Amino acid sequence: MSPPQWVKDLKPAPPQGSDLIQAEREKSKLSVDKLSNFLFTKQVIERQERILKILQSEKVFDKSQNYFDGRIDKFKTALARAKRLRQLQVKHNWSRDEYMCANDLVSEPGPYGLHASMYLTTLRDQGTPEQHKLFLQPAENYRAIGCYAQTELGHGSNVRGLETTATWNPEDKTFILHSPHLTASKWWIGSLGRTANHAVVMAQLVIDGKTYGPHPFVCQIRDMKTHEPLEGVHVGDIGPKFGYNSMDNGFLLLNKVKIPHINMLAKFSSVDPESNKYVKPSSPSLVYGTLTWVRSTIVLQSGGVLARGVTIAVRYASVRRQFQDRDAPSDADGENQVLNYTMVQFRLLPLLAATFALHFTGKAMMGLYEENQKKMINSDAGKVADTNRGAGPEEIHSGSDLLADLHATSCGLKALSSTTAAEGLEVCRRACGGHGYSSFGGIGAWYADYLPTCSWEGDNFMLSQQVARYLLKSARAVLKGNAPNNDTTKIFTNFLQKQDMGAAHDVLGSDADLVAAFAWRTSFLTFEALKHRDVEKNSWNSLLVDFWRLSTAHSQYLVVKNFYDALQSDSLQYELDSTTIDVLHKLFRLYALNTLEKEASEFYSSSAVTVRQIQLARTKSVMKLLEEIRPHALRLVDAWNFPDWQLDSSLGRKDGKVYEDMFHRASELNPLNGLTIDPYPDSDVLVKKDESERFKSKL
Amino acid sequence: MSPPQWVKDLKPAPPQGSDLIQAEREKSKLSVDKLSNFLFTKQVIERQERILKILQSEKVFDKSQNYFDGRIDKFKTALARAKRLRQLQVKHNWSRDEYMCANDLVSEPGPYGLHASMYLTTLRDQGTPEQHKLFLQPAENYRAIGCYAQTELGHGSNVRGLETTATWNPEDKTFILHSPHLTASKWWIGSLGRTANHAVVMAQLVIDGKTYGPHPFVCQIRDMKTHEPLEGVHVGDIGPKFGYNSMDNGFLLLNKVKIPHINMLAKFSSVDPESNKYVKPSSPSLVYGTLTWVRSTIVLQSGGVLARGVTIAVRYASVRRQFQDRDAPSDADGENQVLNYTMVQFRLLPLLAATFALHFTGKAMMGLYEENQKKMINSDAGKVADTNRGAGPEEIHSGSDLLADLHATSCGLKALSSTTAAEGLEVCRRACGGHGYSSFGGIGAWYADYLPTCSWEGDNFMLSQQVARYLLKSARAVLKGNAPNNDTTKIFTNFLQKQDMGAAHDVLGSDADLVAAFAWRTSFLTFEALKHRDVEKNSWNSLLVDFWRLSTAHSQYLVVKNFYDALQSDSLQYELDSTTIDVLHKLFRLYALNTLEKEASEFYSSSAVTVRQIQLARTKSVMKLLEEIRPHALRLVDAWNFPDWQLDSSLGRKDGKVYEDMFHRASELNPLNGLTIDPYPDSDVLVKKDESERFKSKL
Repeated sequence: MSPPQWVKDLKPAPPQGSDLIQAEREKSKLSVDKLSNFLFTKQVIERQERILKILQSEKVFDKSQNYFDGRIDKFKTALARAKRLRQLQVKHNWSRDEYMCANDLVSEPGPYGLHASMYLTTLRDQGTPEQHKLFLQPAENYRAIGCYAQTELGHGSNVRGLETTATWNPEDKTFILHSPHLTASKWWIGSLGRTANHAVVMAQLVIDGKTYGPHPFVCQIRDMKTHEPLEGVHVGDIGPKFGYNSMDNGFLLLNKVKIPHINMLAKFSSVDPESNKYVKPSSPSLVYGTLTWVRSTIVLQSGGVLARGVTIAVRYASVRRQFQDRDAPSDADGENQVLNYTMVQFRLLPLLAATFALHFTGKAMMGLYEENQKKMINSDAGKVADTNRGAGPEEIHSGSDLLADLHATSCGLKALSSTTAAEGLEVCRRACGGHGYSSFGGIGAWYADYLPTCSWEGDNFMLSQQVARYLLKSARAVLKGNAPNNDTTKIFTNFLQKQDMGAAHDVLGSDADLVAAFAWRTSFLTFEALKHRDVEKNSWNSLLVDFWRLSTAHSQYLVVKNFYDALQSDSLQYELDSTTIDVLHKLFRLYALNTLEKEASEFYSSSAVTVRQIQLARTKSVMKLLEEIRPHALRLVDAWNFPDWQLDSSLGRKDGKVYEDMFHRASELNPLNGLTIDPYPDSDVLVKKDESERFKSKL
Repeated sequence: MSPPQWVKDLKPAPPQGSDLIQAEREKSKLSVDKLSNFLFTKQVIERQERILKILQSEKVFDKSQNYFDGRIDKFKTALARAKRLRQLQVKHNWSRDEYMCANDLVSEPGPYGLHASMYLTTLRDQGTPEQHKLFLQPAENYRAIGCYAQTELGHGSNVRGLETTATWNPEDKTFILHSPHLTASKWWIGSLGRTANHAVVMAQLVIDGKTYGPHPFVCQIRDMKTHEPLEGVHVGDIGPKFGYNSMDNGFLLLNKVKIPHINMLAKFSSVDPESNKYVKPSSPSLVYGTLTWVRSTIVLQSGGVLARGVTIAVRYASVRRQFQDRDAPSDADGENQVLNYTMVQFRLLPLLAATFALHFTGKAMMGLYEENQKKMINSDAGKVADTNRGAGPEEIHSGSDLLADLHATSCGLKALSSTTAAEGLEVCRRACGGHGYSSFGGIGAWYADYLPTCSWEGDNFMLSQQVARYLLKSARAVLKGNAPNNDTTKIFTNFLQKQDMGAAHDVLGSDADLVAAFAWRTSFLTFEALKHRDVEKNSWNSLLVDFWRLSTAHSQYLVVKNFYDALQSDSLQYELDSTTIDVLHKLFRLYALNTLEKEASEFYSSSAVTVRQIQLARTKSVMKLLEEIRPHALRLVDAWNFPDWQLDSSLGRKDGKVYEDMFHRASELNPLNGLTIDPYPDSDVLVKKDESERFKSKL
């Protein structure tokens, strides 16, 4: 709806946001393009530009009503977009990376999400060639739409506790899938609610009254033509959530549904239809690898996830002005730029540092993973008992020390990185003041959509037990002298050698010492926990808080170390100029020293650092680093290279036109303004006039 | 929509939630009723029961579609409810407390919210008798609906920076209200978007070219019959937000709108229409008191706000079971109750302690406020220059030392209590695991609606400057020997006397020492900050982080002290039995020791407590307190006395029927399940069949 002319003539009070943000950019000589290329490669950046153009030219991807839509409209729009993305994938022959890039730009979970990821992956990884032909091919061509049904209403992380049964029926060589209780209902299953007509159902395999644990079964759930649920299937959407409302997370109850023998995914284990016997898993190591891969991906993405919030907050803080500086002369002109306030810098700049820390850590993780996969392809190493996702605190039986180390690393870093990103986004939202609460700010919905990452692929608190268990095991091996040679055992050995002397690392003067202080703290906490468990014989349950602290400490060490290593790399020295390298180095120190200061008591009590150095770390080093990094903050977020279209944020606009954009959305796009109400309590009339549809341009 | 019979026959797997929660209740002998009565009084509890019955009998208050509604339906429903609440208020002749109780039970911000609070209050407090007759009376009778328009698009906390002008026009004795720029648009104004036809507009008073600062003007904005905006008025809803979407926060631009002389609220300052001169404010002390009162209310409410989340999380943790205890024999039966895990206790029970700590602190604050008001009524004390809400970091000019102390206390406690409640709610939500993310959990929406409390009535970070300024001033007075006698100056004096010896409080052995340790830390940080400011002459801006820490430390001291004092009160000893008193005492220790441990580094470095005692505080005391409090957790949350109808949470059901309720809502109330879609990307059909309306029972 168009406002009157006198409103159209209004501009924000000077100075204009576009001038302020321009002036802010000019404070730094940092090369945004070089840094972008270094972070993502030129090829990836060009790919994004190409795909962005395609998406922006299609009406279905118009985002202008995104923040206004209710659940049903949101889902319908997401479905239309999901269909179009698939059509574009076919039309342009997009690779998986290109398809994912398009999804990232659209930036909302879509109804094909679990089909395109877990359904296809599970069929591919766990199906036989015959099953590939039968199930995978139609799925790849979107003639069958599937999902992955594991979690149940009463059973989250503990996969072994699943209730759904798949009972082998020797008479007609079928399985009977059944939900014995209400709590057996599959729950939270992405793409199941309204979209999928197939599901991989994780169910307890039962042969002749004996249970063999959870196994994957392909089950058709809806009619291929009418899309109505089949007989014995009760399926639907589980309802609205804190976020993720464009996705139809679903429930599924099965009442003695019969499926043929071929529907049990049989690459690793199976039932022999002749002997009616269970055939044990052969080599599940690659499945186990998948788990590690998924978690590594979360680590890699977390930097970018957080960077969206930091980008919005830093840009808005460059445009927003509030109060005069208290020490300024009383006749000083105008208000102070919010980014000038140390309280704002203290909240935002360590998060800016964390975006890079997490990005480099994620890249290192992926590198390690790929290296390890290569080694494993030709070996029998890495056998594990647990073939399921979302693994609980079971013991890990691994033939490969590298794999065990990688697994523990991926668990700890997944927990730390997703927690850092989620909580950091909320800090960014609040740092935007009142306007951060508006949907147009663009951080709130992004935060809400991201939150499940803290729970899925292993709840962050649960994962900390796996990390602790691995560290305890490594520590025991070091004490016994039969430890494998890896970084973890190296830092433990070093700690044991120097323990009696204490450490007193020079964290202010030496980067290497800074990294070593984090290693020392991990080692100290590990041997403390080991004492509690092995010597004092404390119960596992009584140590969970210690384990969580230990896991966090270890993961912080890994992030600090990976950031440090990235700074030493040849490619960095080769691709970046000295200004940029210098700023990255400051970001490293800010991340490390700020973390050290926040966790000060563990650094004291482990004698890793003196009290005096920790005090100086904050009062001198951190505050000084904030001041030094501040002029580069805007260019650093620019290097993350988010198109405005992706951010969809008034506050985060690259051109600084914050207020114009806020006003435009509220005044001209907001359907609620189509309602003229009757305001008097005595009147039963609610709405006198409803023109809300005029604001919408629905599909 | 009704599910098939075989689904209706399903029950959750045993043991049933209702049995588990019953067994959990039986673990404690704590008297829920006595504690409830002590917290709220019997009269308040009976009032709530009475009003709840009235509300539940009215269809308009049916909550079953609350979590499903989009913005427009949410607003319409809230408007219908607001009207009905007003009708009931008239019908039953409800007092303000009864009306507020009804609003609390409905638990959503409504479109009359700012009319019933700020509009009426401002007219009452700042209007003359003539203005009361002209504006207040019709407003009290809901013949005029108003709002309070202060914040602008470009100006939040800094009231002095407001752009809207009210220019005195001597010719026809009118004011001309005008928005000179887009950033002058009023923004975030509750009840303005669609509902109000009047606004109190805060605008810069201009007489003969000179500006006299912001003043309040009554301005009609919409036609009383058609409800269309008047000429020169551009008004509307500002769009969706992270929460608070049942409220129509609005924007307002004014184009040279003329209002008569009588529309400037003139109790404190005015324009003499004869001489055309500004008449200075007479006694704004009561307005200043209002600010303190509003913040004290936030402190008092914060305990209950947090308690809703803790109630839901503790109840669900009593019903939910996950994994076997790792040290249990391998043939042990069933999964472990989640509340048994120390990691869960460590997250939830300190928050449970905080609910009581904040409640007692809030009550003490209100008591102090009322005592002070009585004193002030007959004195000229407490004059201040700033008559506006949301005051920024201006200097406070106060004639009354008690008032200054009360004001600083209310600032610091408002910041700490709202931050604790908001962040605590999110911890509770996550402690509910995956289901905490479902809207049916009931914490997410409550958290989202509460968040603005951290920003309004003074942004929490901004307020910390006011606290610090007051503490520095007090410290200077103590050093000069001309300090008034109050608790703040007393702890400073004590600190200065013992400073050289250090303190080494016995926080494990003595409650009084525990309180004293918090006082010591506040004092230490105050004199450190004073040195930085007065001796080292550091800039104000460079000290903002120190000030924020200081404000937090001081407020934590106040909460610990108030909790401690409440335990010593006669009424507590008289009304409660020894079991309950003992549990409350443990909650006090848990709150204090857990806070001490989280802020360990400040307690070390101030020499308030030895390193050894702090280590023991966590590893021994806190862990032991968790174990001891745990059996009483469920009864403690029961004592908060939230009706299920108010909580509207599947997870927080008092009867433990968690899974039945989740399933019922998803399967039978969820309108999205009325859509049958076409899942294939090649098809342009999105929806084959739409029965979503059948799920709704709209007004």
